[in-house]
Amino acid sequence: MNPTVGDFEGNVRKITDGIEHARRLGCRLVAFPELAITGYPPEDLLFKPAFIEANLRALDTVARATQGLTAVVGFVDKRDDIFNAAAVLHDGARAGVYHKQYLPNYGVFDENRYFQAGTETPVFAGGDATFAVNICEDIWYPSGPTRRQALAGAELIVTINGSPYYAGKASFRETMLATRAADDLVCVAFLNMVGGQDELVFDGGSVVFNQRGECLARGKAFTEDFVVADVDLDGVFHARLRDARRRQETLGAHEAVTRIVLPRLPAPEAPPAISPVLAERLQPVDEVYQALVLGTRDYVQKSGFKRVVIGLSGGIDSALVAAVAVDALGRDNVVGVTMPSPYSSSGTRNDARRLARNLGIEFLRLPITAVFNQFKRALAQPFKGLPEDVAEENIQARIRGTLLMALSNKFGWLVLTTGNKSEIGVGYSTLYGDMAGGFAVIKDVPKTLVYELSAHVNARAGRALIPETIITRAPSAELRPDQKDQDSLPPYPELDAILKAYVEDDRSVAEIESFGFSRETAARVARMVDRNEYKRRQGPIGVKITPRAFGRDWRLPLVNRFRE
Amino acid sequence: MNPTVGDFEGNVRKITDGIEHARRLGCRLVAFPELAITGYPPEDLLFKPAFIEANLRALDTVARATQGLTAVVGFVDKRDDIFNAAAVLHDGARAGVYHKQYLPNYGVFDENRYFQAGTETPVFAGGDATFAVNICEDIWYPSGPTRRQALAGAELIVTINGSPYYAGKASFRETMLATRAADDLVCVAFLNMVGGQDELVFDGGSVVFNQRGECLARGKAFTEDFVVADVDLDGVFHARLRDARRRQETLGAHEAVTRIVLPRLPAPEAPPAISPVLAERLQPVDEVYQALVLGTRDYVQKSGFKRVVIGLSGGIDSALVAAVAVDALGRDNVVGVTMPSPYSSSGTRNDARRLARNLGIEFLRLPITAVFNQFKRALAQPFKGLPEDVAEENIQARIRGTLLMALSNKFGWLVLTTGNKSEIGVGYSTLYGDMAGGFAVIKDVPKTLVYELSAHVNARAGRALIPETIITRAPSAELRPDQKDQDSLPPYPELDAILKAYVEDDRSVAEIESFGFSRETAARVARMVDRNEYKRRQGPIGVKITPRAFGRDWRLPLVNRFRE
Repeated sequence: MNPTVGDFEGNVRKITDGIEHARRLGCRLVAFPELAITGYPPEDLLFKPAFIEANLRALDTVARATQGLTAVVGFVDKRDDIFNAAAVLHDGARAGVYHKQYLPNYGVFDENRYFQAGTETPVFAGGDATFAVNICEDIWYPSGPTRRQALAGAELIVTINGSPYYAGKASFRETMLATRAADDLVCVAFLNMVGGQDELVFDGGSVVFNQRGECLARGKAFTEDFVVADVDLDGVFHARLRDARRRQETLGAHEAVTRIVLPRLPAPEAPPAISPVLAERLQPVDEVYQALVLGTRDYVQKSGFKRVVIGLSGGIDSALVAAVAVDALGRDNVVGVTMPSPYSSSGTRNDARRLARNLGIEFLRLPITAVFNQFKRALAQPFKGLPEDVAEENIQARIRGTLLMALSNKFGWLVLTTGNKSEIGVGYSTLYGDMAGGFAVIKDVPKTLVYELSAHVNARAGRALIPETIITRAPSAELRPDQKDQDSLPPYPELDAILKAYVEDDRSVAEIESFGFSRETAARVARMVDRNEYKRRQGPIGVKITPRAFGRDWRLPLVNRFRE
Repeated sequence: MNPTVGDFEGNVRKITDGIEHARRLGCRLVAFPELAITGYPPEDLLFKPAFIEANLRALDTVARATQGLTAVVGFVDKRDDIFNAAAVLHDGARAGVYHKQYLPNYGVFDENRYFQAGTETPVFAGGDATFAVNICEDIWYPSGPTRRQALAGAELIVTINGSPYYAGKASFRETMLATRAADDLVCVAFLNMVGGQDELVFDGGSVVFNQRGECLARGKAFTEDFVVADVDLDGVFHARLRDARRRQETLGAHEAVTRIVLPRLPAPEAPPAISPVLAERLQPVDEVYQALVLGTRDYVQKSGFKRVVIGLSGGIDSALVAAVAVDALGRDNVVGVTMPSPYSSSGTRNDARRLARNLGIEFLRLPITAVFNQFKRALAQPFKGLPEDVAEENIQARIRGTLLMALSNKFGWLVLTTGNKSEIGVGYSTLYGDMAGGFAVIKDVPKTLVYELSAHVNARAGRALIPETIITRAPSAELRPDQKDQDSLPPYPELDAILKAYVEDDRSVAEIESFGFSRETAARVARMVDRNEYKRRQGPIGVKITPRAFGRDWRLPLVNRFRE
């Protein structure tokens, strides 16, 4: 399910539609994601009492819709404090509540800022099945509630999640879930949110594992899906009977589990119509591409925009962003603008136009030379006698930013920016210039991966949607004659490796040198990263696809004299 | 002490200078702020192993400088995890360490993200005195380490702090400290950091209370100071003998306190030369003004800038910012730029010039009309047949932003922006236009307080440094003919009251209506706040002066459909 933060009406509608669908299929139990009622993460909206109350009213509406089955729904519970909670709704009423016990407060997460941690561990006995519920972070702890609930008799663990995407996480997560199921001899139904919320993408891909750690069903990634499975709870019981290791384990006195008995329900009218599907796992580059598409679509549409505008330089970054935008929003909702200057080559001018034609998007041409010259006249007096330098380069980028924003203001189009992670890392970009816009689609994509994604776009299309000349030309900002990125930066494969070590892995310059890079290059890159924190702080958000993006999980001070 | 984040060399020098000064005065004990070694808050620098190691090496250097006395110094301790810690350095070596037990994770604080909480509670017995150390948040808990340390015999609590400023906090804090001292019959030496770090200002104003809650010494606010006091520890002992309530209290078994005995030191060579000073508490408006001055000075100088440039519109916001900048950096380091358009009145043009003359700052005039006209020509085709609207207004603001940034790029001046909290709250500002710059001096100052501060500037100067016409003219953005702020916004006193309720106090529209505002106005203001989150996210940081600023303590989602 793809909820929207604060859209209680829309979220309730999605949930009640899902319950209705489950009922039609003859499901006994249906689950929805972590904080499905409010959307996730609601951040400081959680401090608004009116927000908490609206969420409780919404849950009541959902509860009334659960006649004849059981539903697990994420919401914010309010006692003397607030809790990240899962309601077990049964036959039209609230039967019990689970409070998340492990609150993540690292990376992109700030849950200690908002929630009290839960202390009670309920298990629900409902007719022929005993099941338990826990939430996201909880299941990552081998000695956490999953183990206690399984030891106390739960045959099925329903774990509801808002698990933010990064490349490769789904695979890691499935390995953990399979292990947890087999360790605790329990079926695990892992239910994940899908959709974009600001910089985060939730990748869906819900899965059900049996007590042998075998995958029974897997939902599609990056799109809403209704995943069904028939879990063999007798199989769990038999496996436990045969398991000597389990007999060695008992719950400690401090590990009390509450048992909640659910009223027995009549058998569903229709016989269960269940045909579990095992969706294919995505290939790594396709996975990233789909994350970019979904993150962009949801940011644009959930913010209330329909069309977007992109400055097309004729380079590979803006080409990739345009391709993502077309897949996210449809070609009719994407406008490309070329803004040539005297330093634009005929190659890039032509390529911008060819790209727009290939993608079938609207294309505008707004030359900047006259405005640039007028700016130079306006600054003639204070700049008198001084050579042209980065000041004049940035003026060109800022004229382009101003033109795109003027189109945005006039027509209500959202500006997508085109900077990649390598550029943004070292600050090879102009604040208020090419950084001006509402959403930075590829801000977490290193340049080397930009090339892979562009090749993927063409492979998928079966033709050079992104013209080959765009892919093969040496990258240039074209802000002065014959400028090339590689005049100012190390080669991108080297730069990306150093950036990963410094930014994502917290390695020092000395360590990076020990990996085989020159100390001078490593120090220069590190210094560029440090110096340009002020730019990143004022840049737009974009889709997180790595374990550490420049966003919620990158909190560096602006004033910082540390250099190592 | 005013440390700088990551400047280990500079911070160590300040600490060892302080130790040397203490030794000359004959002090037995000297204390430095929370995380004095690293600067505070170091944020995600704490994830860098090299940063932790550099901090430990720096502490060793400080330890060696403590011959003949005891020093308490904030640093990051490393065991199997890291701790926000205070070292007790004694006679040239580390004698013991305290780990902060209560980690703030609310408002501007994220300490659970970084630190393990301490569990041991040491008390230090040194010659004729028994004292204990704890850190910042710890002392706010009446049943926290302060109580346990006092019950275990500590006669003096040294609490080291990085306590971020907001208006009125110092008074609230002193009341708490006086209560804590009297409740626990203990002397309390409260040592606070001073200086600006990004958006935070630490206000200094260290104080010493005796066991009756009487203030013995108070340091100056907003500047480094060396606060000395002679504490009467025999007085503490006598007070405890007479106190029946204290006899009712005992430490529980789980409240174990560790006792660390310090080697006895020879009496200091010089007799103590102690003349405690009770600095006056500041008046409320002056307090805010000094916070703005210090926050601006430290951001500019610690970032390595010398000069700043400010767009002078002839309005009150830019006038106040220019006055603050002159006090922060000196008139020679402030450049004012007027950038008139066809919509600029002769009144504001003249006032900008008079203001610059009054302040004695360099003054540039860069008219924008020709560039504006050229932009309109560049956009003639896509804008054909459409009336002028906010798009053209924003182009003017963005031309000004681009001119200021060009001066910044060419001459290395930092651009100070001039938006106030009321404007930034409702988004009455142009992203990449008047919001373009490195530091937003008054971004947390509501418009009504801008007027009070401007009056304060003139009262302090004994003359109309800010021309009276600037203060009395109706505010206008001057982006179209005869535009007035009040055409688009409620009167500022009303707007500021609604903004405080909605932004700082999390009140709903219905609650704000119940306070006597029109529902329509309250809803409109709330909607403007919500809609403009994307602008604030890309705006520069500025000095926090209220309990909740648009900054680290305001974490609202961009995609957010909640409207109440």
